Amino acid sequence: MTADPNTPTAAANAMWGGRFAAGPDAIMQAINASIGFDKRLYAQDIAGSRAHAAMLAATGILSDTDAKAIGEGLLTVLSEIETGVFPFRVDLEDIHMNVEARLKEVIGAPAGRLHTARSRNDQVAVDFRLWVRDQCDAAISGIQALISAFLAQAEAGADWVMPGFTHLQTAQPVTWGHHMMAYVEMLGRDLSRFRDARARMNECPLGAAALAGTSFPIDRFMTAAALGFDRPTANSLDSVSDRDFALEFLSASSICALHLSRFAEELVIWSSAQFRFVVLSDRWTTGSSIMPQKKNPDAAELLRAKMGRILGATVALFTVMKGLPLTYSKDMQEDKEQVFDAADTLMLGLAAMTGMVGDMTANRASIAAAAASGFSTATDLADWLVRELGLPFRDAHHITGTLVAMAEQQGCDLPDLTLEQMQSVHDGIRHDVFAVLGVENSVRSRTSYGGTAPDQVRAQIRRWKDILDAPRDLSATAAVSM
Amino acid sequence: MTADPNTPTAAANAMWGGRFAAGPDAIMQAINASIGFDKRLYAQDIAGSRAHAAMLAATGILSDTDAKAIGEGLLTVLSEIETGVFPFRVDLEDIHMNVEARLKEVIGAPAGRLHTARSRNDQVAVDFRLWVRDQCDAAISGIQALISAFLAQAEAGADWVMPGFTHLQTAQPVTWGHHMMAYVEMLGRDLSRFRDARARMNECPLGAAALAGTSFPIDRFMTAAALGFDRPTANSLDSVSDRDFALEFLSASSICALHLSRFAEELVIWSSAQFRFVVLSDRWTTGSSIMPQKKNPDAAELLRAKMGRILGATVALFTVMKGLPLTYSKDMQEDKEQVFDAADTLMLGLAAMTGMVGDMTANRASIAAAAASGFSTATDLADWLVRELGLPFRDAHHITGTLVAMAEQQGCDLPDLTLEQMQSVHDGIRHDVFAVLGVENSVRSRTSYGGTAPDQVRAQIRRWKDILDAPRDLSATAAVSM
Amino acid sequence: MTADPNTPTAAANAMWGGRFAAGPDAIMQAINASIGFDKRLYAQDIAGSRAHAAMLAATGILSDTDAKAIGEGLLTVLSEIETGVFPFRVDLEDIHMNVEARLKEVIGAPAGRLHTARSRNDQVAVDFRLWVRDQCDAAISGIQALISAFLAQAEAGADWVMPGFTHLQTAQPVTWGHHMMAYVEMLGRDLSRFRDARARMNECPLGAAALAGTSFPIDRFMTAAALGFDRPTANSLDSVSDRDFALEFLSASSICALHLSRFAEELVIWSSAQFRFVVLSDRWTTGSSIMPQKKNPDAAELLRAKMGRILGATVALFTVMKGLPLTYSKDMQEDKEQVFDAADTLMLGLAAMTGMVGDMTANRASIAAAAASGFSTATDLADWLVRELGLPFRDAHHITGTLVAMAEQQGCDLPDLTLEQMQSVHDGIRHDVFAVLGVENSVRSRTSYGGTAPDQVRAQIRRWKDILDAPRDLSATAAVSM
Amino acid sequence: MTADPNTPTAAANAMWGGRFAAGPDAIMQAINASIGFDKRLYAQDIAGSRAHAAMLAATGILSDTDAKAIGEGLLTVLSEIETGVFPFRVDLEDIHMNVEARLKEVIGAPAGRLHTARSRNDQVAVDFRLWVRDQCDAAISGIQALISAFLAQAEAGADWVMPGFTHLQTAQPVTWGHHMMAYVEMLGRDLSRFRDARARMNECPLGAAALAGTSFPIDRFMTAAALGFDRPTANSLDSVSDRDFALEFLSASSICALHLSRFAEELVIWSSAQFRFVVLSDRWTTGSSIMPQKKNPDAAELLRAKMGRILGATVALFTVMKGLPLTYSKDMQEDKEQVFDAADTLMLGLAAMTGMVGDMTANRASIAAAAASGFSTATDLADWLVRELGLPFRDAHHITGTLVAMAEQQGCDLPDLTLEQMQSVHDGIRHDVFAVLGVENSVRSRTSYGGTAPDQVRAQIRRWKDILDAPRDLSATAAVSM
Repeated sequence: MTADPNTPTAAANAMWGGRFAAGPDAIMQAINASIGFDKRLYAQDIAGSRAHAAMLAATGILSDTDAKAIGEGLLTVLSEIETGVFPFRVDLEDIHMNVEARLKEVIGAPAGRLHTARSRNDQVAVDFRLWVRDQCDAAISGIQALISAFLAQAEAGADWVMPGFTHLQTAQPVTWGHHMMAYVEMLGRDLSRFRDARARMNECPLGAAALAGTSFPIDRFMTAAALGFDRPTANSLDSVSDRDFALEFLSASSICALHLSRFAEELVIWSSAQFRFVVLSDRWTTGSSIMPQKKNPDAAELLRAKMGRILGATVALFTVMKGLPLTYSKDMQEDKEQVFDAADTLMLGLAAMTGMVGDMTANRASIAAAAASGFSTATDLADWLVRELGLPFRDAHHITGTLVAMAEQQGCDLPDLTLEQMQSVHDGIRHDVFAVLGVENSVRSRTSYGGTAPDQVRAQIRRWKDILDAPRDLSATAAVSM
Repeated sequence: MTADPNTPTAAANAMWGGRFAAGPDAIMQAINASIGFDKRLYAQDIAGSRAHAAMLAATGILSDTDAKAIGEGLLTVLSEIETGVFPFRVDLEDIHMNVEARLKEVIGAPAGRLHTARSRNDQVAVDFRLWVRDQCDAAISGIQALISAFLAQAEAGADWVMPGFTHLQTAQPVTWGHHMMAYVEMLGRDLSRFRDARARMNECPLGAAALAGTSFPIDRFMTAAALGFDRPTANSLDSVSDRDFALEFLSASSICALHLSRFAEELVIWSSAQFRFVVLSDRWTTGSSIMPQKKNPDAAELLRAKMGRILGATVALFTVMKGLPLTYSKDMQEDKEQVFDAADTLMLGLAAMTGMVGDMTANRASIAAAAASGFSTATDLADWLVRELGLPFRDAHHITGTLVAMAEQQGCDLPDLTLEQMQSVHDGIRHDVFAVLGVENSVRSRTSYGGTAPDQVRAQIRRWKDILDAPRDLSATAAVSM
Repeated sequence: MTADPNTPTAAANAMWGGRFAAGPDAIMQAINASIGFDKRLYAQDIAGSRAHAAMLAATGILSDTDAKAIGEGLLTVLSEIETGVFPFRVDLEDIHMNVEARLKEVIGAPAGRLHTARSRNDQVAVDFRLWVRDQCDAAISGIQALISAFLAQAEAGADWVMPGFTHLQTAQPVTWGHHMMAYVEMLGRDLSRFRDARARMNECPLGAAALAGTSFPIDRFMTAAALGFDRPTANSLDSVSDRDFALEFLSASSICALHLSRFAEELVIWSSAQFRFVVLSDRWTTGSSIMPQKKNPDAAELLRAKMGRILGATVALFTVMKGLPLTYSKDMQEDKEQVFDAADTLMLGLAAMTGMVGDMTANRASIAAAAASGFSTATDLADWLVRELGLPFRDAHHITGTLVAMAEQQGCDLPDLTLEQMQSVHDGIRHDVFAVLGVENSVRSRTSYGGTAPDQVRAQIRRWKDILDAPRDLSATAAVSM
Repeated sequence: MTADPNTPTAAANAMWGGRFAAGPDAIMQAINASIGFDKRLYAQDIAGSRAHAAMLAATGILSDTDAKAIGEGLLTVLSEIETGVFPFRVDLEDIHMNVEARLKEVIGAPAGRLHTARSRNDQVAVDFRLWVRDQCDAAISGIQALISAFLAQAEAGADWVMPGFTHLQTAQPVTWGHHMMAYVEMLGRDLSRFRDARARMNECPLGAAALAGTSFPIDRFMTAAALGFDRPTANSLDSVSDRDFALEFLSASSICALHLSRFAEELVIWSSAQFRFVVLSDRWTTGSSIMPQKKNPDAAELLRAKMGRILGATVALFTVMKGLPLTYSKDMQEDKEQVFDAADTLMLGLAAMTGMVGDMTANRASIAAAAASGFSTATDLADWLVRELGLPFRDAHHITGTLVAMAEQQGCDLPDLTLEQMQSVHDGIRHDVFAVLGVENSVRSRTSYGGTAPDQVRAQIRRWKDILDAPRDLSATAAVSM
């Protein structure tokens, strides 16, 4: 290629060349420093240091004066960060060193006593664990909000009839409310999964020091309690080399994102000109300057895609951790960006889906019409034959098949056949069979527990409202047992 | 390429060509039929059918006579399968049709009534869920056995000193028992994770029928109880389209396999001629006919690799399920082989690791010598300066650094310096500093909760023995809460 | 749980318990032996051994008599395997030892000379590479067949109008043939990718011996040529520790499977009652005994899912290989099952898709009607305004938007507006604008290279037919260059 | 939990709560706008627009005056961006709209004519493809630099003896140079893979317009040439829905990163106190303030981990693209961040590894001593028995095993046995056997092509130097063939 300096390729090569030309020090700093992303842990880092300092004073390792200076100095640093005036320095590598260095500038000598009986290894472990625990809480809140949105849709349409699909083929009529409640069940499991994960990770690694514990007479139960943990971790080597809490958060997030991707796919399909089952609000769609009727379901498509992003982060951290010998290895620094990105993606996805579900409008006419076509009550007919005439199910299936074929040949649906036509196939069929052939009756008849009958749907809505309304102590740890 | 029919390539091409030449029917059967793998669900399928038939009789949907015939006929079929005489037929596609067809041959007409008020969709859902639930139990048993093996190692070597590593560099002395107990903590979390997963999945989908529930007056609580479930599922659409239980099992398995991969890596490194920390028994190694000293740690290497296999299965199922609209889609048939393979791999991995840990012998001389080198008690010295002389930690660090540099220059380790040499760096240093410079004293001093001091290690061993000894009702579902 | 021995759980526990009760020897054999899967490499193994023996004779390392005995004996073994009478023994671990042991039984002492100047490490490397190379050829054949099927569809419907979608929303009319040809382009890249992979892997590792090469005067170029390789590998350490060829095959397979998953998704959507764009033949769908109109697109759904399976295998092998030190580690034994499964899945998927594409029938009326709705020619109108009236494109867009809104308000489409109505928005609009508002004209007008105009489509069909018809020497390696 | 407002959890909840409280518009903007990351494509976007405008003028679609104004205005915009004064606006969503809107401010009306005969769909396709193509070039440069670093190490130590490992167990002596050259081979394949990927992606999608091509008489070959592409893409639907080029770049990057992870693992192990095979320079390690002897191989550990990051990005994009119907779906917007991150990671990894390899020092004494232990020349002995005494290899193996056992029993290595001792096992052994038992002789004897003999290593070094020195036209596309 002629190296025309104006082509983007040449320009980019120069840029990359420049990157490679960067001296080793710049490269090492770029690969090694974490302050670019771990500054996000500032609140957790300062909370951890404050708890540590208070404990050092309580156990006599630190003087009360020093502890007070440290505690107040850390609040000053916190305030500087939150007001945006804190001077982050990349040469100080990470959030821990940045905070400690600034603390020294603020309070002087006592700052040098803060790091007694701890190490960056347990410090980063507690910071990150606190952050992930917060994300569990955020996920729980976000999921609850989304459940509420689905409940509202279910309540409005508990008896709206729509087609139930298998293989994206019309199978049997169901209700809109029932379909919405399917997602409530999925999200309910997500809720439970994040609660279990939160309970399992709620142990405090602070005090594990570099890896072996410490000879200082520290009180790990005190720092654990101060930071809202249920107890300290039980093995110092494990404390600094464990990232299970991040992996479990990612796994739970992947499952939750999978649920979002499924409803997102339905929204995309339902929004097509061929389905027209649902109208998404303008907020969550984008138009086209020349095709005003066009409503691209962008938000739904992006939500469908986000699952890949979260799964990718999950695979990344599993692969990073694979085969690492104990205890801390620098590889583990790759944990944060993956979890940050997955958590942001999940929270954004939950918020967007909550908005979309809240705003969307079912096209009742379309879904009702679709439900009534395609011999969707054939199973009801077969069940009637079993129940009323005592036929074995397999025989009832066969008769139904013959009747469907007859209707298809005549270009009509099952309720349009005459009684005589039906009796020509099986003479035991009576006029009351027609009651089960309408879609309204069909859905009303499915009264088995968890079935699509509107009463069943409403019962489940009530159950879920009670669950959401029940006061719940998030710190309860019954969810994790040994 | 000249198509020499004797080259493997040509031969293989013919083979593949033959495959493509297979008619569409053969191809469709190959891609569609699941009997080749789902026959593994036979026991679950028959148990589900027996529970369903008993319930149909109890609710009056089926006569007692028919129900009895079905129940006994199913036992006959079960016996045929277990004795290897059952004629599996690929044209009957799956285990459900194979069992039902054979039942009809055995008991005749009543067999046709078994499928009343159910469908293959809820049938496969209950079968697979029962199977995965069994695997949770198997994982729990396997993990407990492995924990016991680690506990035995920890007990034997609660006070054996070895180097603790960070970055695979000697950091501080720790004890063999402490290192073993780190894995007990990891496995303890695995145990808890599988228990939570089991409790969460322990709801019975039977009765969801094709997707909408049924109009027959079935009793879903009865079948749920008969099959050991805590309750029936609450939404029929979700019941037939949910594979969360499989995904959660795979996620938990991936984390557990990750733990195995970490110890496997340590075993491989520890078995090298350069480390010689551990001797694996002949059972888990392979030799070489010409290098009899060589003990290739094959089992450890394979265990390190198996994590990839389980992660791969996890990614596969997540990708399969991504964006599937409700309810059942045939894509979901891809769930079983992934879970079967991951479960088999995990159980085999747990068994092999249990064997290896049980058999292995720590090379106490090597690990003690390694622990004593590399200035591994430098932190103890710094802590002494803080504790005894009241220096700020950062100052103590600086002094220690100077002393280490002095020792390094003289080709000795810290305990080999004279008191005078030490005092030349800081004149407050007293003779009792030497007490903290020995590795035995070092590990004994780390008495913080979860620290490496032998007493702490023994306390944790006792705690874990109590946990394992405690009677536990696996069906308890407190672990999952809403 | 009460351990009722009749519940499936208890039965399964017993089974699993039994598994754990298996002695260590059984467990080690289960995890270590590869004969269960690597026997699939028998043809490659024997071909490699025959080439090796012939070379040993040619270089004087082996006598001609011995070489002849070995060569013939190996053919006997090959014949035994292919006729199913070969006694595979799991205690002999792998295919290499099974073949060599049997060879010794067949020909006696000379068998002991076959392993001169080689090792199992280079032996398995060459066997597996030959197998993967065959799979590249199989993939190439399978892709060519699928391209032909798409070409036939494209040729039949080069001018059938259908809606072109973005966001699954109607965007502009396109032709059926053009849509089919989009997949031909994707598959064409797949073809090229497998060819490049094949060329890159076509180097012979035989002669690398255990890892260091050998002191025997072997001729690696001779064995390479005999086995159809372009040259021997250039570094013996790399030869026995490299699995790039497998990873590249898996990556190329994942991309190809992704293409299949996209068309599979389209088939599922197009087969829905709401779309009815295509009718799949009975061969590739399954029915329902009671809903004869129902055609579940099972094969398409399975193809959509298979992508997850292949991606999972890819992730598995990448994770297995991550961070392995040189040279051979036993971890690498996990390579085969992943590649076997991915290759089988891909070949089956290509064959099934070829069958489905060959059999499917476009519903011309449905797709034409869908194409004409939704203001699909709005862009044509805007382009006319630019071209004929010289308006800036952004202005033309604005005018078109106004006209679409007008049509929407009147419940009609663009061609149904009168000239007066149009002129009320922009008085320059002339009667010939109507020519561009019909879908037939629209597609005919898109004559830019690669556009949807039937003539463009037919030109591309011709180009592809020429490509497929061109004789091609598969062993040519121009594809890989350095 | 008591909601102490001072705990980080409460603070974070408030923060998250705030996030959820953000109105739908903010959420939609956050999920939908891409300008936050796609502004990185500015140079490509402007180059594409300039080429498009020039072509529109050449084909008479645009006046020369307008084209000139557009071309110059775009250079002004480019300059504004590069000097950091460009006002990026998130409400304009993406880089394309930002550039066009600014162009209008700069040059007025003619800006409205730029978008004639194109669409954002083909615009983003060409921008991203240009960017990825640049990354291929950057990868190629980076790999070449790393190869040079390995070549320098190989040249220096072509005859330094070190142990060759299998299973991390000493197997046979090899040379340092040979080990370095193994990585040259891996990187050579990476080079070839990126070149093939580049050639395959080097087709220009510009002119595909929204999806169907255009009715304007554009010249796609002209824009293709202007942007350095080999030709225009051949199907407009494929052009806007294809992301193969990104997937192939990610796959090639994953394989390359895998290679880096393998050497990184070796560096970590080799840097341990137990191995001491290599000393990494201070540039690529971090110390500890109290353990000055400690050199944590941080950069190597991070490089080992980065493979997970790139694999994660690969999985993410595959999962995003799975099952997307044609043509453009918004899901595809998720492509860029994954590729950006993977590319940055790979380039940084290559640069860091190049620096580390360039700086590292082999510890010749350690590696030589390690090579001479562990009966590493047992295979040489066996080969001598075959070659000199004509024994079958399997018999020679047996005799060697007996001699190794004898040496082991006497606490010596093979060269320390006396001739008499050897003859007591096989009386044909002569004194010249000792020549093959020394490690120097051993490596010198492995003269088979690609073997570890220094002469072989030097030959390969020369071959690679010639390859790197050869002028190469990157735009040559012989690598991709059809």
